[in-house]
Amino acid sequence: MKEYVLNDLDDEQIGRLCKRPGMDFASVLDQVRPIIRAVRDDGDAAVKKFTRMYDGVETEPLFIEPDKIPVHLADEERHALDTAMRNVQRFHMEQARGELQVETMPGITCRRVMRPIENVGLYIPGGSAPLPSTAVMLGVPAAAAGCKTIIFATPPDKNGQVPPSIAYVAQKTGAAGILKAGGAQAVAAMAYGTESVPPADKIFGPGNQYVTAAKMFLQNSDAMVSIDLPAGPSEVLVIAGGNADPDFIAADLLSQAEHGADSQVVLVTLPGFDLDQLRESLKSQTRDLSRADIVRSALDHSFTVTAENITDALAFSNKYAPEHLILNLDNAESLIGSIRHAGSVFLGACTPESLGDYASGTNHTLPTYGYARMYSGVSLDSFQKSITFQKATEAGLQTLGPVVEKLADMEGLDAHRQAVSVRLKKIRGRPDSETGK
Amino acid sequence: MKEYVLNDLDDEQIGRLCKRPGMDFASVLDQVRPIIRAVRDDGDAAVKKFTRMYDGVETEPLFIEPDKIPVHLADEERHALDTAMRNVQRFHMEQARGELQVETMPGITCRRVMRPIENVGLYIPGGSAPLPSTAVMLGVPAAAAGCKTIIFATPPDKNGQVPPSIAYVAQKTGAAGILKAGGAQAVAAMAYGTESVPPADKIFGPGNQYVTAAKMFLQNSDAMVSIDLPAGPSEVLVIAGGNADPDFIAADLLSQAEHGADSQVVLVTLPGFDLDQLRESLKSQTRDLSRADIVRSALDHSFTVTAENITDALAFSNKYAPEHLILNLDNAESLIGSIRHAGSVFLGACTPESLGDYASGTNHTLPTYGYARMYSGVSLDSFQKSITFQKATEAGLQTLGPVVEKLADMEGLDAHRQAVSVRLKKIRGRPDSETGK
Repeated sequence: MKEYVLNDLDDEQIGRLCKRPGMDFASVLDQVRPIIRAVRDDGDAAVKKFTRMYDGVETEPLFIEPDKIPVHLADEERHALDTAMRNVQRFHMEQARGELQVETMPGITCRRVMRPIENVGLYIPGGSAPLPSTAVMLGVPAAAAGCKTIIFATPPDKNGQVPPSIAYVAQKTGAAGILKAGGAQAVAAMAYGTESVPPADKIFGPGNQYVTAAKMFLQNSDAMVSIDLPAGPSEVLVIAGGNADPDFIAADLLSQAEHGADSQVVLVTLPGFDLDQLRESLKSQTRDLSRADIVRSALDHSFTVTAENITDALAFSNKYAPEHLILNLDNAESLIGSIRHAGSVFLGACTPESLGDYASGTNHTLPTYGYARMYSGVSLDSFQKSITFQKATEAGLQTLGPVVEKLADMEGLDAHRQAVSVRLKKIRGRPDSETGK
Repeated sequence: MKEYVLNDLDDEQIGRLCKRPGMDFASVLDQVRPIIRAVRDDGDAAVKKFTRMYDGVETEPLFIEPDKIPVHLADEERHALDTAMRNVQRFHMEQARGELQVETMPGITCRRVMRPIENVGLYIPGGSAPLPSTAVMLGVPAAAAGCKTIIFATPPDKNGQVPPSIAYVAQKTGAAGILKAGGAQAVAAMAYGTESVPPADKIFGPGNQYVTAAKMFLQNSDAMVSIDLPAGPSEVLVIAGGNADPDFIAADLLSQAEHGADSQVVLVTLPGFDLDQLRESLKSQTRDLSRADIVRSALDHSFTVTAENITDALAFSNKYAPEHLILNLDNAESLIGSIRHAGSVFLGACTPESLGDYASGTNHTLPTYGYARMYSGVSLDSFQKSITFQKATEAGLQTLGPVVEKLADMEGLDAHRQAVSVRLKKIRGRPDSETGK
């Protein structure tokens, strides 16, 4: 990790540190475009072809009901998944919103109701190992929101099967089916629908650059689909207080670094923090990791910044807008009000990022790459949309109508005015015109 | 308007009626791409060049503080804008959410707080007439959400000036500045920022196909910007009860039709509705309209569907997923629960769409083109994002830690497990280990 002193840096240097590595989006898009077109035009056959080509497996059937998959899991594994699902369920259910009703002026009532997005496609990355935690983070809120058709897509294992942990979560969340495919071909199949896969209204989930590029391409396409949020490489920013335990800090940095060589790991230290001990601990803890090579390569482009005080440290963090922010500080809770941009925040020495990654109850699908400035992580809201309603009584129309007529005039929209005028004329023309109803 | 009988149509025919006209997105994108690149690279000079080229006006200054614009408005106009702003403010303020805090299990607390998106760019279309109502619908919620830097962009009038009604709303909503430009060049200037325009984190607002294409292109670009929602031609679906007044229905259809020749206007009638009288009323009301040609051309590709009962009518409406839905029915309010997809709904004979377009309090920036299936209209939420927080006590970590260790094992992520293990080891190794805190 490179080491900087915050006070020695000028604004331009700080800006450069906060900038994530450039993504060559255009070239990835060029690669996924033909895959998307082929899936749109040839459906299942194209998905199977690309799965054979990229994953080296035959998938039959391509799309399977979760209940048809025999699930062999140890009791401890089941219990761990159940606990994670219960906590995520609890936190997300509390996000539900009742009907809102406001009388904005006498006789004019406005309402808002929430409705589930009916058909959702959840992408669960595979690769080196299945990621049942992503199935939990997307499947549980989708079910809580009342989505009608929940589809999972995940790369099959080398025997062409769905990993049991993912099948288990799919069963528990009432998913209608699992598409055994990954990459851009899986995303395209959910967006357009195929002979066996029903089309989704919205597509969720993290993935590699091909998955992300496919999602971004499709949200601007004739597929008429929306996406959760753009996803880049995962990242953490840790603020270590003077008395923070270097072993804890090292473990947190490493748990982010093991996600991939492109993971972003940033440490901001306050006066008194033992940086020497941290270096030692990083070295010794890395030795035991199965992904030590990935970790070392992620740490190579990571950095440490020494700050003079918490105000400067938070200013840097807000500028960076990290996906994950760990505040390993005694007074972490008192700083909530100062956090302006972050995906999810971990407060105090006993709250490693892993808790939120798996089971605290918050969602781990979060904005990366600085997108925390304008995107929220996935929440119950992500699986719903709102519809507004309004109703005017005759009296309400008589009060608000002339205002609307004037505004329509100002915009030169005659028919908009007329829609009010024809009504007012009839109301006023009636001898028994109500005024109070 | 073409006329159909719902019961005579098969699913495929219904599907075709619900489909919007195809958009040739690729060719529009090809046109806006060079504009966006020029603005990114050359800033103000490029914006001025395109404004000269497309709008035929010189703009100096390009970016102006609202307070520096003298506003001449009649008292009635001011009052109308004030009333609209107050109603929109009331309904949107009620959408604010407090901090959510949930103890998902003993010792594990999850929270969610809302934060404003700090820099927002609001596009206010111009063209034949200024649209202060869009300034109200975007400026008022932006201010209510606490956005720090609110920028308006709107095409200048033929003297290169900002229309006074828009300047007035900008002043009242505390906007930092108004960019006197329209089209893709205005959107690009807000996305990347220029010498005079500060960059926005999120861009809002309806516009023509160039504006929409620019927004969609930019949300997938290095500009790091998000957008409110994709916008297509405006549309209404009216359900007319048997005793609905044909003059009211005609006025509502016309007020949608006058938006543009590409407006979508759909009428679903219930038994008893006087379709002959409607045809008459459409003809006679159209005669008085200044935009009669636009209206006739919009009506040419519009249609009427006769339904046998309200259940069928609502099923058709949910399939169509209209931006605006007018329920001109006696029991409109009792049907709220049956509306699954729509942008905004107008209940009863006294609630023409114009009320919501201007001043009832709901937002008029709504999903078109069938996007109501997965997008909400603009709301207070659109100007905010959420950040989640979690905190484990030592006792909480001891309960949840083993679950997280197991899940990390299942995913083969050693360092994720280790971040818990190093902490549990130290807690357990301490003779005075707390268990209750």
